[in-house]
Parts: sequence; structure tokens; C-alpha cells
Amino acid sequence: MIFDGVKLNPAMDADFPAVYQSFEREDDIMMNDRNFILKGDICYSEDAKHLKIYPDGFLVCVEGISAGVFEKIPEEYKGFQLLDYSGQLIIPGLCDLHVHAPQYSYRGLGMDMELLEWLDTYAFPEETKYADMDYAAEAYSYFVHDLKYSGTTRFCAFATIHEAATLQLMQMLEKSGLRGYVGKVNMDRNSPDYYCERSAEASVKATASWLEQAEQCCQNVQPVITPRFTPSCSDRLMQKLGELAAAKNLRIQSHLSENISEIDWVKELCPWSDNYIDTYVKAGLTAPGRPSLMAHCVYSDAKELQVMKANDVFAVHCPQCNMNIASGIAPVRRWLDMGVKMGLGTDVAGGSTLSIFRTMMEARQVSKLVWRLTDQSLQPLTLEEIFWMGTKGGGSFFGSVGSFEPGYEADALVLDESRMLHPQALDVRQRLERYICLSESQDIKHKFVAGNCIF
Amino acid sequence: MIFDGVKLNPAMDADFPAVYQSFEREDDIMMNDRNFILKGDICYSEDAKHLKIYPDGFLVCVEGISAGVFEKIPEEYKGFQLLDYSGQLIIPGLCDLHVHAPQYSYRGLGMDMELLEWLDTYAFPEETKYADMDYAAEAYSYFVHDLKYSGTTRFCAFATIHEAATLQLMQMLEKSGLRGYVGKVNMDRNSPDYYCERSAEASVKATASWLEQAEQCCQNVQPVITPRFTPSCSDRLMQKLGELAAAKNLRIQSHLSENISEIDWVKELCPWSDNYIDTYVKAGLTAPGRPSLMAHCVYSDAKELQVMKANDVFAVHCPQCNMNIASGIAPVRRWLDMGVKMGLGTDVAGGSTLSIFRTMMEARQVSKLVWRLTDQSLQPLTLEEIFWMGTKGGGSFFGSVGSFEPGYEADALVLDESRMLHPQALDVRQRLERYICLSESQDIKHKFVAGNCIF
Repeated sequence: MIFDGVKLNPAMDADFPAVYQSFEREDDIMMNDRNFILKGDICYSEDAKHLKIYPDGFLVCVEGISAGVFEKIPEEYKGFQLLDYSGQLIIPGLCDLHVHAPQYSYRGLGMDMELLEWLDTYAFPEETKYADMDYAAEAYSYFVHDLKYSGTTRFCAFATIHEAATLQLMQMLEKSGLRGYVGKVNMDRNSPDYYCERSAEASVKATASWLEQAEQCCQNVQPVITPRFTPSCSDRLMQKLGELAAAKNLRIQSHLSENISEIDWVKELCPWSDNYIDTYVKAGLTAPGRPSLMAHCVYSDAKELQVMKANDVFAVHCPQCNMNIASGIAPVRRWLDMGVKMGLGTDVAGGSTLSIFRTMMEARQVSKLVWRLTDQSLQPLTLEEIFWMGTKGGGSFFGSVGSFEPGYEADALVLDESRMLHPQALDVRQRLERYICLSESQDIKHKFVAGNCIF
Repeated sequence: MIFDGVKLNPAMDADFPAVYQSFEREDDIMMNDRNFILKGDICYSEDAKHLKIYPDGFLVCVEGISAGVFEKIPEEYKGFQLLDYSGQLIIPGLCDLHVHAPQYSYRGLGMDMELLEWLDTYAFPEETKYADMDYAAEAYSYFVHDLKYSGTTRFCAFATIHEAATLQLMQMLEKSGLRGYVGKVNMDRNSPDYYCERSAEASVKATASWLEQAEQCCQNVQPVITPRFTPSCSDRLMQKLGELAAAKNLRIQSHLSENISEIDWVKELCPWSDNYIDTYVKAGLTAPGRPSLMAHCVYSDAKELQVMKANDVFAVHCPQCNMNIASGIAPVRRWLDMGVKMGLGTDVAGGSTLSIFRTMMEARQVSKLVWRLTDQSLQPLTLEEIFWMGTKGGGSFFGSVGSFEPGYEADALVLDESRMLHPQALDVRQRLERYICLSESQDIKHKFVAGNCIF
């Protein structure tokens, strides 16, 4: 055992307000490199149907990359630092494919309202405040702090239309040790006067300027092109963003087919389109080999899903938002049957939690209600499926992420079950299921991102 | 300010396992009597439609009973001990009207299974273990500990068929400082051989013996007659339990109309009954003036609800169980429109949480799905309605409980919002809504039950 290294990223939390200092966890891990071995009850997804479980297993990490999980430490790794969490669950880091960072400040508010009233009362006025850098710094520090200490290691986040605040958010996330994507939002129509870009040209110009700075300021937090959704982006803006994405080989994120009146509206706005996804495809925003994310897809039919599949578009399931905003429940079973790429999103503030564990549980719950209330051919999601969606399924958007198979980036969580006492024996799969249902934000002991221990 | 009293109930937690000691909260309240004043941002339900809000208000407690909430301390109470929680939310204690104490050990497990498989794999084998008093003591200690530190001040719990373990649970709950009801379960048919009472007579005899001891051992935790549900109780057993309840003026709790096949089964078993509730009414288990609890009522029609209303039967809404067990969603809006008495239940382990805050949030979420997916005449529940259900609505089962109006028992929670930082100003109602959505088990600062501070 080697414990003579230095504490990783000691200045990481310097930007968080003082009041958060009391919540900082004690780091008892000292590491000197990204070569180490984690021992514990290790569990990861092989695919959507199968869990791999290694009680008392050894996860070997070489330069931030998994060399696999073993029952005994292989000879060649015997000199590695051993971090012994015997008896504790170790799983891959979680992936949140859809979250609105500026909406974190008002999560859990206005849940009596319907979508449009909620947007006008909360979303747009709140996002407007991020023109003020002091406000942005404070609000984003709460978001980044809580995301850092959540189970999420990879994320894809919406910011606001503001260049400066979006760069600030990216820098804070970079410092946190998390990895993922952030998008400056584009919107040039059908938005309130006080929160709308002046023209397609102005929007694209600001985006290009933001991209240039983003490339300089961050390494592990990358920009993603983010048209809010078709109704708030003119054809011209969509086209120009598509050109930008293609030229720079950038990914895009947006919303798709969340509710019926939105879909009707898109048909009206884009009479030339075959369907909603076609408004993104025709603009060149999505393309095969350049993965993109579409949140919700509640009403995407077989044809739309087929187009998504052909263009490497991930369907992002946001079950809590499906309930809170009450647009309907996405038929995830259909996505699975068709082999559409997919993952989970918390969709803060359509959802009020940053926990992908809770999102997994909610994905299973709403899948049961779809089955019970609307279509008994759609079998409820299994434990294996929800776990896969939150890890390897969503992780594939980021590359080799979300699993412990050899070659995957070493994103790992050491889970703390100490509050969840039980009088009976439980096997590793049972403990995993139980942890997903019972865990709260305080129940994560350590988090590794690409082999770096961030707490 | 008087702070020379003694720490309340110092030996209260002596029965909890040592591993829990580290979770015990620091008691910074020293009280010498049940005359005191709580200062803070006070909020309670007037009725299902209206919140009363007193920013910087004073709740006066006289001998454990509320004398009301005031903007200034009235002259006659100026000598009372003042507990100053300025800037913090203070609300009535929460009421959990349906929880299975022995199922707490396996909450969050087997959620892939359908009801019957789940009962056979988990519920019945687990409940059987409570014949072993060592097992019961350990398992119940986890339940009682977590319930004590939850937001719940009043409960109505199912135990198992076992006399001794049920008495043990009652004693532990009595010691915790919580108040409520516990029922030894009755079941003499349609149950596994290993978990079924031998006959109606044996079941009633054990119940009478348990009642006698329960009266001696506990003061604030009272017995409630608990036929599991009609399918597992013979007509003869139901009749005898009805006689016992009437003779001793005892309350009863059970399950009602949770799913379609259960309702069909009851029709088959009790061809003489008008409907499901009639199997309880005809047995004399329910009667006007003797309130009783029926969990679920998902498929109770207008006629059944009318009979419930006439017999002072509370409909207990268990929204997480509605999702997890996928029997369907209770149409609570209809109950409200008809004026049926009602409250919330966590239904552990059909639900996996003891949090009535989370149950409130889930009640609103599933009400939105009912509205969206099945019947657009059923308007989603409002913040006022879910808060009322978890406090004053459910509290009325226990007497004058769940409000701060004069004459109500002083059940109160001081809430801890310190983890929920926000950059913008929020009013008290917004903070309450946010707390309901965001709070976790660690976010309760103090709890008072009938004027006693239990932590």
C-alpha cells in the first residue's frame, strides 16, 4: 500500500461559498497517480440485460483506464496502491444526459403550474438573471457543488444564452473534476422579449465567440451546440448551427417530442419537415457518427425513432419530468426493443433532484404505470435495464464510459450503505437494488472520474 | 429564556444498536416542561385549500397543547421558555396512516416482481421471522430509529401475526416518544401454511391476549384491530374481530380495493357482500363514530366511497405503492370532491421510504399522471392539498392533530433548509414547496410530539 502521495486537487472547492465548507467531506484517500486497485463488492452492466457481479473483487485502474475486474490481483499489478473497501459496493459513475444548470436554483418550485405558466413564471425570468455574473457565480456554485457530491461523473448540461456565465459554469465544472458537456443556449424566436437573442446572426456570432473561449479555458468540460428546441430557433438559426456543428465536429443537445401541443406547433412552424426530428436532421444538426442528445421523446413514433437511430441520436429519458410536467410517459420499452441509443436525465428543474439513482428508480416506476395505464404490451423496466441506462447506456455518449470492462475510463463510486441497516443476509444484487431505492445524497463515500479521486 | 431543565428522555435510545449511535443528533434543546414558545416561519393548513403562514410567528404551547400562533407573544405567555428558530420553517408533525413495520427490513427489494411473487418471495417469509424475538428486536429497532428521526409524529402501523413481537414493537415506539397505533395482524385463510393462524378462534384468542398486555405496556401507542384484508380473513374471523372492536371501542385498519383481481376475488369469497367495503361493514369492523383506516381505495367507486363516508372510514393514499406495485393510481380528486376523510401512507414496503414529505410530492406527481393518462376531469392535486393530507387531513384520525390552531396537540417540526441554498429571495410558501420536494432524512432539526421534544 502506498499512501505517500499528495491530496488530489486541494484547491478544487475554493470557489464554493463558505457556507458549504461544513458539508465538505473528509478525504481519507491520498493518491499519487492514476494506477491503483479498488477492492470491494463490484457490480457493473455487461449490457441492458446482464449485470456482472464480483463480490470481493479487484478493479484495476491503469493511468485512469480500467484493466478489468479480477477475483485476485494479477501478478503485474501487485505493486499498485490498494484502496480496500471490502464489504462496500463499488459501481461505475453515473451519467446525467440532460440537466439545466441555471434552473437548479428554483428546482422544486411552481410544480402546481402547467408548462407554459411555469416557463413564464420561473424558467425565463430566472435564466435572464445569468446576465449578472455575480448572480451566475453564486447560483452555479450551488449547482456544481451538489453535482460534484452526487453520483454523477459525466453530464451534459444546458446553460443560458449568456456567453460569460456559460464560460464561468464550464470553468467551475472543470475545477470540480467532473467531465462532460455544457451548452450556451440558442433561441431567436417565440421567446419573451427580455430573454431572446436579437437575430440568428447575433446568436451564431455569440456562439462562435463562446466556442473559441471554451476551447481555451477547459479540457474536460467541452462545448455542445444547444438550440433550445425547434419552436424557439428560426430555420435560419438551426441551419447556421448545423453548419457550425458539422464544421467543428461538435455534438448537439436539444428537446424532442415532449408533448402533443409542442409537436403540433413544430408542424405549424416547419411545414416542410417530415416530423419533429427532421427539423434537426435537415438543418444538419444531427448526423451519423456525430452523437447527439434529444431529451424526452415521449411521443416519438417508430418512424421518428428509426431516424434517430440512423443519425446516432440518443433518446434521453427524464422520468421525474414526465411526472412533474405531466406531458406523458416515454415508452422506453419501445426504445429498447428498437435498439435506439439511450440514457437517463434528471432534467433539473423539470425534475428536482440531481440523483441518477433516484432517476433510475423513477424510470422503473413510470414504466410500470405506462404498462398498467396505457399499454400492457410495454413490459416494465427491470433492475438491469435501469442500471444500464444510468451507467453504460448513457455513458456510451461520452466514449468508453459507464462500465468496468477493460479499456473503459475508470469512473467509479464507492457507496456507503451504513445508514441502511438490515437484519437479514442480502446478496450484492439485492444490495444494489436497495441502494438505488434508498440512497440519499449523503450516501456516497468516494467518487473517481477517469481515475482521479474527486472526493 | 429558561434553560435549566433536564434533557428529555435521556434513555430513549438505549434499545437501538450501537452502530446507530453515530447518527444520533446533538440535542441542543433543554426543556423543563411542556409550556414553551417556538419562534420561526410558521406554516400550517387551515383546510385542504388554504395555508396559514406566519413569517416570524410565535407558536405557543401550553401543557402540550397549542394556544395558537401569534405575531407577537401575548402578555400572559411572556414567562414561557422561548425557542428561537428565526428564519427557519416550523410546521405541524406529519402523519403516516399506513406502514408495515416488519417490511421495513426489505424495503426497496423485489421491485421487479409482480404483487403475488413479491408477497411469496419477500413479505410472507420475512414476516414469519418475527416469531424469533431476537430477530424482531433487531429489525424493529431499525424501523423505530428511522421513524423517530423522520418527519412523522403520528403513525398507524401493521405488525405481524405474532403477539410477543408486536408488543415489543409497541414498547419501542412508546419509548421513542412517537404516538400512534400498532396492530397485530389477523389472517386465517388464503395464506401460506407457514404464515397463517390455525383458526378464527385461535386468531381472536391471541388478539385478546395481545390487547390485554398492550393496554398495560403502553400509553401513547395504542392497539388497533388489523385484519390483513378480506381475502386472508374468514367471515367468522371478521365477525369476531368486529365484535371485539365494538365491545372495546377499538379502531381498525386494513386494505381496500387496491387492484381489480383482488376485488374480483373478494366478490367470489363473499358473494353476500354489496361491495368490498361491505365485507368490513357487515362484520361490524367499521361503524360511524369509530374511525377506521383503509389503505389504497384505488378502485373504490362513488357507492363504496359513500359507504366509507357514512362509516367514518379514512381513505389512505399510498402513491409510491401505487407506482411500485402498479395496481393503478387512486383518484384522490374524487375523494376530495366527495368529502371523504383521508390521509397519506408510506405503505412500507410497497413504498420504500418513511418520508411523508416525499409521499406528498409523489401524491402530486401521480395525480398529474391520472389527469394526463386516464381522466382529464381529475385536476392534479395542489401544494395546499398534499400538505393538508399529510398533516391536518390525516391527523384528524388521531384527534386534534396536524395543525397549530388553538386546542391542537403540539406536534411540530423545525425544518433544516441549510443544504438547500438559493441565490434568490423566496417566500415562506415557496420554501415549503421546495422543502417538500428536496428534503432528505437529514433535514429535520427538531421534532416535538404533543409538546415533548423527542430530538
